[in-house]
Amino acid sequence: MSYKERREKLYTWMSENGISLMMVEDTEGRRDLGLRYLSGQPGDALLFLCAAKKQCVLAAWDVNMARLYGDADAIVALNDWGRRPETALPEAAKLFKLPYGSKIEVPPATPYPLFLRLIEAVGDYDVLCREEGAHKAVKYMRAVKDADEIAIYRKVSAFTNKLMDEIEKSVRNKKIKTEMDVALLIDARARDYGGEGLGFETLAAGPTRSFGIHAFPAYTAGPFGGSGCSILDFGIKYLGYTSDVTMTFVGAPISATQQKLINLVEKAAKIATPMMVPGASCREIALAVDKLFSAGKRHMPHGLGHGVGLEAHEAPLLNSRSDNDDVLQPGMVVTLEPGLYHETLGGVRLENDILITEKDNEVLTKSRIVRL
Amino acid sequence: MSYKERREKLYTWMSENGISLMMVEDTEGRRDLGLRYLSGQPGDALLFLCAAKKQCVLAAWDVNMARLYGDADAIVALNDWGRRPETALPEAAKLFKLPYGSKIEVPPATPYPLFLRLIEAVGDYDVLCREEGAHKAVKYMRAVKDADEIAIYRKVSAFTNKLMDEIEKSVRNKKIKTEMDVALLIDARARDYGGEGLGFETLAAGPTRSFGIHAFPAYTAGPFGGSGCSILDFGIKYLGYTSDVTMTFVGAPISATQQKLINLVEKAAKIATPMMVPGASCREIALAVDKLFSAGKRHMPHGLGHGVGLEAHEAPLLNSRSDNDDVLQPGMVVTLEPGLYHETLGGVRLENDILITEKDNEVLTKSRIVRL
Repeated sequence: MSYKERREKLYTWMSENGISLMMVEDTEGRRDLGLRYLSGQPGDALLFLCAAKKQCVLAAWDVNMARLYGDADAIVALNDWGRRPETALPEAAKLFKLPYGSKIEVPPATPYPLFLRLIEAVGDYDVLCREEGAHKAVKYMRAVKDADEIAIYRKVSAFTNKLMDEIEKSVRNKKIKTEMDVALLIDARARDYGGEGLGFETLAAGPTRSFGIHAFPAYTAGPFGGSGCSILDFGIKYLGYTSDVTMTFVGAPISATQQKLINLVEKAAKIATPMMVPGASCREIALAVDKLFSAGKRHMPHGLGHGVGLEAHEAPLLNSRSDNDDVLQPGMVVTLEPGLYHETLGGVRLENDILITEKDNEVLTKSRIVRL
Repeated sequence: MSYKERREKLYTWMSENGISLMMVEDTEGRRDLGLRYLSGQPGDALLFLCAAKKQCVLAAWDVNMARLYGDADAIVALNDWGRRPETALPEAAKLFKLPYGSKIEVPPATPYPLFLRLIEAVGDYDVLCREEGAHKAVKYMRAVKDADEIAIYRKVSAFTNKLMDEIEKSVRNKKIKTEMDVALLIDARARDYGGEGLGFETLAAGPTRSFGIHAFPAYTAGPFGGSGCSILDFGIKYLGYTSDVTMTFVGAPISATQQKLINLVEKAAKIATPMMVPGASCREIALAVDKLFSAGKRHMPHGLGHGVGLEAHEAPLLNSRSDNDDVLQPGMVVTLEPGLYHETLGGVRLENDILITEKDNEVLTKSRIVRL
């Protein structure tokens, strides 16, 4: 689907829901890859979409960059519009000759003080800032990948799989000895491959650091592999879309407790994977894993998975929170990442990316727990 | 200054300003290194500070990590407090036995819909969300570095300088040929050195990509150095604090226009550096450079500089916006980064980190425009 087709779909949603103008913001501190999804612009810009005119204007910090990447009916320098959302919004309303009283929707991430300034800046309009609105509609448009996006996911998954094989081999033959070794290899391969880079900072945690869900620092010059559990969580970004996998490397000797964590995590992946089919409740899948872990007297301190796409964490959410009503649909690409952590013995996590197909699913990535 | 001493200072500010409880949030999508500044906790947590009790509680996503890094009077699992700010805030108010009607200050980055939920969650209290409040006070506490922080800056600057020498040598002798070569070298050296990693994703843009203020992608397998202007913008993070420097590599032959950009940028650094003294208005320094560039019929599309610290972009801001009333003070570490960009001929930027001393300044880093 082209950027224009995505916007057409959004204009329809906006018209049906009475929204005349929508503002999408991707700036430092308030990143929203919805901007890229709708316009191709990689970041640092505001996008204003007018439903009645079916036109949009991109107000970019770096106008040279926007002219290269931005797909929009018009491109302006954000500086020329006063550099701030509250100065740019009235300019956009003027440009589109928006009738007074029209509804303008701003991002749900808009800070309260900025929201007040926006309301003041466009006093003649009705400004909405809500979680269940146009931005959520974009989020769920993004959650269901189209044929082009699925083709990208097949490519980035194949590459991620090849890289995991190389990593396993290099950990086994001790070419990779440190967290840094594996992290830098991934970074280099991502660029060699022609990827944009990484979907997120690689987390490489050797046995003494794998107790943390997200290792801090992300990686060090310290050992990776060897006795105990080492966790590697990474994603390759290709044409904007990121893979997201976690491998655990287990070196002998390990304790009975560590073995138990490994068994539980592998079992969780085994029971949850076949549940990942169209129509399945994300919450129920997560509850099934919670139940398995509870029976083993363990508790997973994070969600079971999440959609991936232009961002590493997207809709839908695979967690057991009571307000989670996400349902799997064909075209979604969702991670499944059961993990258990012991304060001193370290952690175990296994994460793969799963494409929901028409009637079933397809596990795109081939991550595993590697016994060294 | 210890974390506790920083908090003591903040409790005093809170008491003087009638704030009983303050919430600091560092979570995905709403990062605030104020959390780390006040508690040592690297991220993914809420910190609640009670002025009357002079005590704080850290509610962390990863409680194993918090027990290792978090300096607080109490640590709880965020999960046990319902995982969300609106469920955790009433728990904190209860824990501190906060008198009804007290003022609670939440981050200015709080989205409007969350702000409404917070108000509802603690109906008996007066919830403030404002830009000119306790969080801004922390921001300006952070802007002025103490002796320990300055000592860290001397170390990370010395290392950054050594690395810039190595990079210059390797670009000259063609050991570095691609953007990736230089970016991966920096990443490896940061960890070898014992740093936490990078302050931000390295931007390495060869001659065909240096037209962008922030190159996209950040670096590729494409050429770096050679004829034209290559920009390298990086920061090393050590004990939490990041350096931030930009080098430009100029390879012959270049055009008269490129030479003009180089001259203007070097001249800007030369006139602005001596202006960086205690009491100086940040806006006036930026205006002096604007004037120089205007005389050369050029325009800089970004600010002239910014504070550095636990984050790459901190207070004060060195820009010419009319509402910028930041004033330099001894102990501030501020970048100076004049830059000019041509849509096809590429860009030139020169960035150094400058410590404001009692009566003058000290340029900590030795970045430069390198003629190849």
